[in-house]
Amino acid sequence: MNVFIIHAHPEEKSFSTTLKNIAVEYFNEQGNEVVVSDLYAMKFNPVGGSNDFEELSNKEFFKYQLEQVNAFNNNLFTHEVKQEMEKFLKADLVILNFPLWWFSVPAILKGWVDRIFAMGFAYGAGKGVYDSGAFKNKKAFCCLTTGGPEAAYGSNGKNGNLETILYHINHGMLYFVGMQTLPPFVGFSPARKTDEERNEVIEKYKLYLKNIGNHQPIF
Amino acid sequence: MNVFIIHAHPEEKSFSTTLKNIAVEYFNEQGNEVVVSDLYAMKFNPVGGSNDFEELSNKEFFKYQLEQVNAFNNNLFTHEVKQEMEKFLKADLVILNFPLWWFSVPAILKGWVDRIFAMGFAYGAGKGVYDSGAFKNKKAFCCLTTGGPEAAYGSNGKNGNLETILYHINHGMLYFVGMQTLPPFVGFSPARKTDEERNEVIEKYKLYLKNIGNHQPIF
Repeated sequence: MNVFIIHAHPEEKSFSTTLKNIAVEYFNEQGNEVVVSDLYAMKFNPVGGSNDFEELSNKEFFKYQLEQVNAFNNNLFTHEVKQEMEKFLKADLVILNFPLWWFSVPAILKGWVDRIFAMGFAYGAGKGVYDSGAFKNKKAFCCLTTGGPEAAYGSNGKNGNLETILYHINHGMLYFVGMQTLPPFVGFSPARKTDEERNEVIEKYKLYLKNIGNHQPIF
Repeated sequence: MNVFIIHAHPEEKSFSTTLKNIAVEYFNEQGNEVVVSDLYAMKFNPVGGSNDFEELSNKEFFKYQLEQVNAFNNNLFTHEVKQEMEKFLKADLVILNFPLWWFSVPAILKGWVDRIFAMGFAYGAGKGVYDSGAFKNKKAFCCLTTGGPEAAYGSNGKNGNLETILYHINHGMLYFVGMQTLPPFVGFSPARKTDEERNEVIEKYKLYLKNIGNHQPIF
C-alpha cells in the first residue's frame, strides 16, 4: 500500500508532528511505502492562481478552473503542482495531518487542496464527483489536533459538533473527489495534557492505524 | 459607519470582484468609510508562523498561539499583521468577500484569519468568545459566489446544506470572536448565468446592503 501524508504544522516538536511521525513509522514497519509532504518544511505556496500554470489560455480574464482544465489537457501545471499531483495519484491512503485552526485546516493545507485538486485532474471535464469520483479507489482521513477539550466539540459543546465543523473537509474535499472518507482521528487539546495522557492518545492512534482496514467510510 | 471588506479573488473581472465593488460603491454613497484588503492584489502571505513576529519568546519550541499572546502584549507583530489588525479594529461592519473554493474560503483568506485573529488580540488571554467575544459590537457577513447552482446547496442538495458548509466560517471564525454574524449573501453559479441573471443578483445584493440594519444575527 502507498501512503501519502500531507502535513501542515510549523513546529517539528508539536504533537501534530508526533502523530505524523507515528503514522510514518507504523506504515513503514508494515512494509508500506510512505510519502510525506511536509508543507511548512517545503515552504509550500498555498496561493492558488496564475502561478499554477506554465502558460495561460486566456490572459485577459483569469478563470481558475478553466485554466486548470486547460493545464491538465496540455501538461501546463508548474512543477510544484505536478509533483504533488503525482504523489497523490500513487497513494492508496491519503492522510491530512494538521492542527485545527479556526475550525478548519491551516491556510497552507487549504491551498494545497485549492491548487492540487484541480478541475480536470480531480473532478469535472468528464470526471464525476462523490461516488462517481475519480479517486474512489483511495481511502482518506483527517488526523487532527485541537486547542479545545473534547467536551467543547460534542453535540452540545460550545463549539458545536465536530462532525459539522469537519463537514467541509470530509465531505467537501475528500469525499467530493470520490475518496472513501474514513472517520477522523482527533487528538484533543494536547497542550493541556500530561505526557502520560499524550501517550494514551498516541496508543489510541496506533490502534486506529492498525485497524485501518476495518474503518467504514462516513458518507 | 466604518466598513472593512476582505476580498479574495485573483481576477478583477470576476463576479466576486463585482460584488465587492458594489459594496464599496454602496457604502461610499451612503457616506461611510470603506476600507478594502484585496488580498491577491496585496500579495498577502497566508502562511501563519514565525514570520508573524518581530521576535519570538521561545526559539526552541514554536507555539503559535503563545507567540501571538506574547506579540500582542509586547507589540511584536510584524507590520503586515499589525496593519490588518488596525483596519479590523476600526470596522463596524466586516465583509468576507470570496468565491467558495472547496466548501470554504480560498487559502489566502483562510490565512488572513489564521494570522490576524491572533490569540490575545481576538480571543483568549482574558478575552472571551462568542457572546462574550471581544468584537461583539461589530457586525460581519460572508458575500460569496459558488460554482454549483443553488439546488446543489439545499437541504437535499448533492453538496449538502450551505448552512452546514459555512458553519466553520460563520460560527468558527466570525461568531467565535464575538461578531454579530449576519446571513451570508450568496451569488450562486455566476459563470453559468446570463448577463441579465447576473444583474438580478447584483440588484439583490444592493437590496441586501440597503437592509443591512435589519438582518438578524444567525447565532
